[in-house]
Amino acid sequence: MKLTTVLFLLLLVSVGSSAAPSRWRKRVHEPCKRLVFYFHDVIYNGQNAQNATSAIVGAPSWGNNTILAGQNHFGDVVVFDDPITMDNNFHSPSVGRAQGFYLYDKRDIFTAWLGFSFVFNSTEHKGTINFAGADPLMNKTRDISVIGGTGDFFMTRGIATIMTDAFEGEVYFRLRVDIKLYECW
Amino acid sequence: MKLTTVLFLLLLVSVGSSAAPSRWRKRVHEPCKRLVFYFHDVIYNGQNAQNATSAIVGAPSWGNNTILAGQNHFGDVVVFDDPITMDNNFHSPSVGRAQGFYLYDKRDIFTAWLGFSFVFNSTEHKGTINFAGADPLMNKTRDISVIGGTGDFFMTRGIATIMTDAFEGEVYFRLRVDIKLYECW
Amino acid sequence: MKLTTVLFLLLLVSVGSSAAPSRWRKRVHEPCKRLVFYFHDVIYNGQNAQNATSAIVGAPSWGNNTILAGQNHFGDVVVFDDPITMDNNFHSPSVGRAQGFYLYDKRDIFTAWLGFSFVFNSTEHKGTINFAGADPLMNKTRDISVIGGTGDFFMTRGIATIMTDAFEGEVYFRLRVDIKLYECW
Repeated sequence: MKLTTVLFLLLLVSVGSSAAPSRWRKRVHEPCKRLVFYFHDVIYNGQNAQNATSAIVGAPSWGNNTILAGQNHFGDVVVFDDPITMDNNFHSPSVGRAQGFYLYDKRDIFTAWLGFSFVFNSTEHKGTINFAGADPLMNKTRDISVIGGTGDFFMTRGIATIMTDAFEGEVYFRLRVDIKLYECW
Repeated sequence: MKLTTVLFLLLLVSVGSSAAPSRWRKRVHEPCKRLVFYFHDVIYNGQNAQNATSAIVGAPSWGNNTILAGQNHFGDVVVFDDPITMDNNFHSPSVGRAQGFYLYDKRDIFTAWLGFSFVFNSTEHKGTINFAGADPLMNKTRDISVIGGTGDFFMTRGIATIMTDAFEGEVYFRLRVDIKLYECW
Repeated sequence: MKLTTVLFLLLLVSVGSSAAPSRWRKRVHEPCKRLVFYFHDVIYNGQNAQNATSAIVGAPSWGNNTILAGQNHFGDVVVFDDPITMDNNFHSPSVGRAQGFYLYDKRDIFTAWLGFSFVFNSTEHKGTINFAGADPLMNKTRDISVIGGTGDFFMTRGIATIMTDAFEGEVYFRLRVDIKLYECW
């Protein structure tokens, strides 16, 4: 074997040893997994017990737990168990449930804070994805954090871009969630 | 020195340079730290002020803050400050406190969502571990996310497997928490 | 080229290949970004609707949503939308909003649990930082987790050291937040 061959091998090794930084750079820019879902929230308003998927459970002293409060619902806390679908049709088969809470936290504009999980138990996905973050819902899109996951989504992290896909008065809204995972295990 | 020696060294270097990926693979499968604890929740029900470690602080319009609501407690929000023990004995010395909240978020089955911390201040552990996730409590075990930590648990992430170890009516329950940390700093 | 030269190159490669572990060690000890802010909380107490930035929205059965409860406010849940400033002056221009909730979760001492976001929309910072953790507020400083971020703070993680910088009775408090980010993308 010639020295040139040795040096060529050295070069290969050298390239190999920079694998970690290049993986790092890649990790920055491209999701390792991407998923889009819709979920559907029907807020209990005293008259829709059959269909409601969420309920007000906390309110400021000027509000109550049946009707969303004035001042852009500031202080209302809502617990939800919403169906997740693959498309924007409320009647499509659900592939999981979005479970957790949101609270309205600004008096002069609609803004919410979210803490919830996507709980999957379908042939396609098993496990959970956990989310937290601010949802300034008058913006067309807003980003929250994927703070962890279990099962198929073990230890994942990422960003979820939320968009209000539709709403009807103060009873129904549908969110489109574009989940971009940047840490996959 | 012979070329064969050089090549042997090259091989060593080559093995060394793949350390990052193999660490990565290892990180996937084995916790860097594992801890098992129990915590004990005694819900205030209007008659047990002395012993209660938690209280209902939010409820749907059909419920109230003294007694857990119907429909599988849907919408009840509970704040807790529960003792953590090393074994399953409520009277064992506590090694810390589990502090935070849970909320029941499904009408047709018991399911909760948890946001809380383990706060340690013992000779063995100082610092906190922060948790969030869905707790479908009718399942024998369920996984939530370890979303961060401080002190001895600086920057940690992982999975906590929760099991209902015992319960008495709707006043007391004990959870076993098997914490598997996959990111240790 | 001599064998000694080859070996010298080998040494270089060898050093290069240990870059990943040394980066790891470095990551442990030094923040990749550090930011200090103040935020200001004025709790609604039935008489300060004009100035209030937060409101009680959940309380134990022995409390109500207008006045903080006895027993160290145990069980009170507060939703907030607080101005963030660069210095400790309430009247300084705000650079963003701290939005989310805290809840008091101990009967025999003041202790809280926090879930909130810093929402920035200034020339200097765009995006959000998400926080969660226990806040034993009688301690001079306490650490909570930075569990994620978006925009300028895409995917970040870290520790926030909180200090009560001032308070006035049970209506106003100001927190100093020293954010140390250890994962920057």
